[in-house]
Formats: sequence, structure tokens, C-alpha cells
Amino acid sequence: MVISINTSDGGFRDAIRTGSYTGQTSGMAPGFVQANLAIFPKDWAEDFLRFCLYNPKPCPLLGVTEPGSSRLPMVGAEIDLCTDLPLYRVWHDGQCIEELSDIRHLWRDDLVGFAIGCSFSFEQALQEAGIRLRHIDQGRNVSMYRTNIPCLTAGRFRGPLVVSMRPMKASDAIRAIQVCSRFPNVHGAPVHIGNPAQIGITDISKPDYGEPTEILEDEIPLFWGCGVTPQAIISEVKPPFCITHSPGSMLITELLNGALAVL
Amino acid sequence: MVISINTSDGGFRDAIRTGSYTGQTSGMAPGFVQANLAIFPKDWAEDFLRFCLYNPKPCPLLGVTEPGSSRLPMVGAEIDLCTDLPLYRVWHDGQCIEELSDIRHLWRDDLVGFAIGCSFSFEQALQEAGIRLRHIDQGRNVSMYRTNIPCLTAGRFRGPLVVSMRPMKASDAIRAIQVCSRFPNVHGAPVHIGNPAQIGITDISKPDYGEPTEILEDEIPLFWGCGVTPQAIISEVKPPFCITHSPGSMLITELLNGALAVL
Repeated sequence: MVISINTSDGGFRDAIRTGSYTGQTSGMAPGFVQANLAIFPKDWAEDFLRFCLYNPKPCPLLGVTEPGSSRLPMVGAEIDLCTDLPLYRVWHDGQCIEELSDIRHLWRDDLVGFAIGCSFSFEQALQEAGIRLRHIDQGRNVSMYRTNIPCLTAGRFRGPLVVSMRPMKASDAIRAIQVCSRFPNVHGAPVHIGNPAQIGITDISKPDYGEPTEILEDEIPLFWGCGVTPQAIISEVKPPFCITHSPGSMLITELLNGALAVL
Repeated sequence: MVISINTSDGGFRDAIRTGSYTGQTSGMAPGFVQANLAIFPKDWAEDFLRFCLYNPKPCPLLGVTEPGSSRLPMVGAEIDLCTDLPLYRVWHDGQCIEELSDIRHLWRDDLVGFAIGCSFSFEQALQEAGIRLRHIDQGRNVSMYRTNIPCLTAGRFRGPLVVSMRPMKASDAIRAIQVCSRFPNVHGAPVHIGNPAQIGITDISKPDYGEPTEILEDEIPLFWGCGVTPQAIISEVKPPFCITHSPGSMLITELLNGALAVL
């Protein structure tokens, strides 16, 4: 079911589309699903599609374009991937070479766009269940880590799972697993709980991405598959050309978070 | 939905009913729900019913009799609580004074019987999900502990929550929380995960009931509300007269474990 975002957007999509807003999307369009973006030439896109299907915890697919089309009707009738994110990253050979607010001049008739679920959706569900999230309370980016868990390889795409970490009390942790299990399209249940060393994280105070998050004495860390995984893998696999969102500047879809719940 | 147990019982109910079998019921009538039993005079039963409603994690109510009736149609058309458990405990003033295989001579027209969900049901679901349970693999009783978590008080019934503990790897722990969440009538999701000290367990190697269970280096302990809670509370509250099952010798109902799943 696609709900028009235009009824509640307060004009933010126009601001993004025209390039007048190029910042983070956290907290914008409350209730609507936001997504990670990855765009590859068709040749690489075929491998990447299988990579997402093989690794649904870090890369839950919300939508894929037709080759050459920048429209994404699976997640919104009005979306144009060339203009509708505040900030894009352009990658050559595994390196980000520039950040842009518009990629119309880079679009090609062999490009395929992928919208991948984002933790903002399950964070809304956790907060609605009364669970406090420290990085949000403190206005920080979530802590993210490379693990020693390999993603399933798809063609040229191979590399480690990246996880995001949220600490909470044990009773909240149990509830969080229940809540997130309802949302498999946005990373679903955690992939790990407890000892970080078991998944190859040697220093929990030093995240590989994002900012550190304190873990209190009576808390346990929960680890979710993270949508940063594709960007980490792009750095390793070094495709000649691709485009992603800039971290935190997500695609705002026309789907409601609540509509993603499977139960 | 009540499924007749007689099609698959191999005569065990007759053996129990006639007193020729007085042992444990673990593994008997596979697939059928087993239950903890508590029987109180009507005066005390009124408090106990509210105690169960207030504390559904340790005391999930599967069935209650009409006062004076030993039949329990909520869980089986043919059940007679006076004869259909292998072994009963009779309690006077909070002390178990005898174990009997038949309580017909003790039945009174003011008694009320309670069937309370038992971990055997969710253990079946965990095993069907491929999760190994060490105490079962080793043929031991599960480890149980008094906690510092108070049950909600109902009239004269008050006391600490008793939990059962099962250790498992983190990925199995997450799956176990999902699986058990489908079975709220048989203790549901764990009440705690991780550090035993947080719920007042000072020495995990010394359970208050049952037998010790080793926790391996890469495992995390999960704690479920336990049907032993009522017997622990009977010891404390000391009602003048009551009857329970003898630990491990449960009421075998006519309900299927699978039929208890809420989803």
C-alpha cells in the first residue's frame, strides 16, 4: 500500500528536490519509511540484487528500479531517485569522489537503483514501545562496527557484515527483539546480543562508523544488521562506478513505517 | 480446540488413572500440553486466581475448575484432577506432608483446581526450531532460581518470582525469544537475559530447584518465568491446605502444544 507523502510533507520534498535542503533526514516526515540508496550499472546491479537477496539482515530490499529508470514505484509513485535525496555520494573504484545534491547529469540508461530498509523504521517502533535509545537521546549517530561475520558472496560482492549497536536493559532487550521481529524489511531482529568479541568487535568504545555510545553497567548491547554494509563492501569490492546516499541523508519513501509490520 | 488425547496416548492415561504409573511425565504424550497443578479451597482460590492473572509469566492460566468440580473442560473433556496426575503433593501450612497417586479421598466440594502452563510446551517449540537444550540433552532437570523480582501481590499470595534458566548461543537466544513469544500461555518470552546478578541470582552454579546446567564460554543465559513459583509461594504463604502436582509429574492435557501458538 502506498500512502501519498504529500499530505504531510510540509514541502520538504520540494526543498530536497530543488537542492535547497542537503542535510540529514532523521526526524523528517515522521512515520514514513526512509531508505538507504545504492545505484549500480546493470552489469554490477545483477550481482548486487543477488547480494541483497542473500543478505536480507543488512540489505533488506524495499525497492528496485527498472534498468534505466530513476522511478521507484515500489516505494512511492512520485519518487525520482535523481533528485529526491538531499545528498548523494558518487563512487569511482571504491572511493567516494564527490557529494552532490542532484545526480540528473550522471544518470544513464543502464543504471539500476536499490532502496534498502533503514533502522529509522524500527527505531520508531522501539520508541513507540517505550524503549529509550541512547544515541537518539544524545543526538548522536548510532555506533556501527565491522564484524567478522562474512556476508554471503554474490558474484563480485563479498565482505563483512556491518552492524549497528544499541545498548539497553535486559527486559527492554527482550521486548526489542519482539518488536523488531515484526519488521523484517528494515533489518528485523538483531543478529547478535551480548559479548561483542564473539562477532569480532575488539573495542566497543571505538565504532568503525558513527559515534561511540556508552553502555551502562546494567545494560546489554544488541547488534542489528546495518544498511552501511553496502558502502563498506563498495570500498572493498571497488566497482568502477556507483552512487549511494550520503550517510544520514536518506530517501524518504511514501510508505508508512507501520505498514511494514508483518504481524 | 480440544483434541482427544486418546488417539495417541498408548494407554498412559489409564496407567496414571489407576495408579500403576507414578513417575515423571516428561516425554510422554509428545505434542500434548502438560500443566502444573494447584488446588485450593475456594476461599484461598479466589486470591490465587487473581495471583495468576497478575503474574502471567510464571503462572499462565490454562484452566480453572468450577468450585467443587474436579473436571477441567478448558483443557480436556475427559480430565479428572483427582486421578489424572501420576503423583500429587498434599500441603498443610506450607509444608508438603505426603505424596499420593490419587486424591479422590481428599476432594471437597469447596476445592478449585488450576492448570498452569509448563515449559515443556515451549521447549518442544524451541527444539523444533533446531535449538538444543542442554538439560534435555543431558537428561537433567532444568535449573531454577528464586529471584529478587517480587510477584505482584494478590490477597495473601506474595513472594518472589522463580525462573528457569537455559543457556544458548546469542543467535539461538534471539531465535528463542521469537519462538517463545508465540506461546504466552506457557510462560512466553524470557523475563531476563544475561547477567544473573541483575535478578538477584548470586551463584548460577547452585540452582534453588532442579539441577545445575553448565554455561559455556560463548553462551548467554536466558531466564523464563517458572511454574514452580506457586510451590515456592505456598511454602512462604503457608495456606492451611492445598494440593499440587509433584515436580515433573504433570497433568497431561488434551490440548496440542502447536494449538497454543498465538501467531
